[in-house]
Amino acid sequence: MSQPNVSVIGAGKCDAGETGRALYKEAMELGSLLAGAGYTVVCGGLGGVMEAVCRGAKEAGGHTIGILPFLDRAQANPYVQTAVATGLGQMRNMLVVANGDIVVAVGGGYGTLSEVALAKKSGKEVIAIGSMAGVEGVVWADDARHACSLVKKYFDRKK
Amino acid sequence: MSQPNVSVIGAGKCDAGETGRALYKEAMELGSLLAGAGYTVVCGGLGGVMEAVCRGAKEAGGHTIGILPFLDRAQANPYVQTAVATGLGQMRNMLVVANGDIVVAVGGGYGTLSEVALAKKSGKEVIAIGSMAGVEGVVWADDARHACSLVKKYFDRKK
Amino acid sequence: MSQPNVSVIGAGKCDAGETGRALYKEAMELGSLLAGAGYTVVCGGLGGVMEAVCRGAKEAGGHTIGILPFLDRAQANPYVQTAVATGLGQMRNMLVVANGDIVVAVGGGYGTLSEVALAKKSGKEVIAIGSMAGVEGVVWADDARHACSLVKKYFDRKK
Amino acid sequence: MSQPNVSVIGAGKCDAGETGRALYKEAMELGSLLAGAGYTVVCGGLGGVMEAVCRGAKEAGGHTIGILPFLDRAQANPYVQTAVATGLGQMRNMLVVANGDIVVAVGGGYGTLSEVALAKKSGKEVIAIGSMAGVEGVVWADDARHACSLVKKYFDRKK
Repeated sequence: MSQPNVSVIGAGKCDAGETGRALYKEAMELGSLLAGAGYTVVCGGLGGVMEAVCRGAKEAGGHTIGILPFLDRAQANPYVQTAVATGLGQMRNMLVVANGDIVVAVGGGYGTLSEVALAKKSGKEVIAIGSMAGVEGVVWADDARHACSLVKKYFDRKK
Repeated sequence: MSQPNVSVIGAGKCDAGETGRALYKEAMELGSLLAGAGYTVVCGGLGGVMEAVCRGAKEAGGHTIGILPFLDRAQANPYVQTAVATGLGQMRNMLVVANGDIVVAVGGGYGTLSEVALAKKSGKEVIAIGSMAGVEGVVWADDARHACSLVKKYFDRKK
Repeated sequence: MSQPNVSVIGAGKCDAGETGRALYKEAMELGSLLAGAGYTVVCGGLGGVMEAVCRGAKEAGGHTIGILPFLDRAQANPYVQTAVATGLGQMRNMLVVANGDIVVAVGGGYGTLSEVALAKKSGKEVIAIGSMAGVEGVVWADDARHACSLVKKYFDRKK
Repeated sequence: MSQPNVSVIGAGKCDAGETGRALYKEAMELGSLLAGAGYTVVCGGLGGVMEAVCRGAKEAGGHTIGILPFLDRAQANPYVQTAVATGLGQMRNMLVVANGDIVVAVGGGYGTLSEVALAKKSGKEVIAIGSMAGVEGVVWADDARHACSLVKKYFDRKK
């Protein structure tokens, strides 16, 4: 098997008061836990949850991949270690989910919903903290710690 | 403004008993009504709702565009008049919604959900008969007739 | 077989003096001849050769498809009858050649060269008037009339 | 500036006798030299020159990114460290060149030619050892050592 990758998707902006700060903190902790467990974090490379999960993962010594909608790698958030420019706009959402063995959503709106749907359509397991937990077939997680333990169980089953 | 296009998305298979046949019939009527009102129908070019809506539209003298996930145009359903090969797989879902001024969903699963999400993310109006009507921001329609009248109102507002 | 499509590629600008005007005229004649022979013209939907070939084809009563690099159909040249928005940027070049059974180049620079290369890589026949005629494996044509006769021979062989 | 990336493109197969072996060896040395100079190698992730350049770079302790045409990361050659699945087929060629600050071609056929054309269309500098050196605007290099020195000069100018 190739290196274990976890795609983390979610709100592109986390600046709306306490809710936003809570999501950012949760995503940062998720990145830290995933990196600590040896998983590479894949995300859309921009702000909000994407920045938070990369920040947590990078500070914990992990590897982060950011798959950008633009043709310019320089637009990645500063915690992305391998930036991949695509020029695909929202179509890059497919690449974000395609590059994870499993997908974790932290909050999120329509963009995240498109990723959840594409992941399920591709037959992937999707775990959600927050808003995406209500989508049919998505596994609910209480928080970052819970989500990471579900991710570990997934990879254990694949061994 | 360019020609008025309506993207119709939905279940790729309509073969599951009465529910399937009802969806197929509804989509076929929708195609007929949209063509009668002068709209070009855009869809994913394959089976189920995509076939039904093209069939209804073509038989009513309308124009149908099928945007395929494959590189081979010959895989379009027989009611597609302008087949567009893409080789983009599920990423072609973005092209299906991008080429409609407004989007109508008839039933559908995860593939359709990804299209609804991408359409809303792009700021488009989405009308749904059936399963997608529960997604936040989507306008509910009773049936094909109701959906077509909502489409007409949309284009009237844009004049 | 699906409808016979001919992809026409070439210089995006034809405004550089006599050479540009000659290319524009040649492409316009090519569009007229192809439409007269019953072929649908596929192109990149923008200016220069793309505009000229659509103009010739449309004025001769043919069907023209423009596959645009942008997400906005309204940016197609006025002679495109079926505009297809993609948001793929230069990646849409692949779609332009994928949607033709055969490809004709009229002049052109690096963008056209990428299309010629993708067409040959896909195993398609490429005919060129002007600058692309020097690429290995490309069939040289004197002018629009010659190119159209080569296209007809290609479709005759496929019958 | 983001990390310095060099895209290396070229023949997907290097198995045709001495010429093939010579290309493989040249690409392997190029990978080794680029990695030694601190550049990340970006390629299409498959065989031939792509495998050779990754092998040379990896063995020299460098980082290699393989941008695959498929949706399955596991199809990358064993020397790719960060595999990126795209499902874009030949359209991924655009991503290969978009993710390099500069492009080096080692041999190659129509696929490589499409990459050279897309790179030049994007305004990038392209250096070629072998078959692509004849394309207008491409800088000729004698061998891997020469190509790497030209790459260094490029990054020095950008400082």
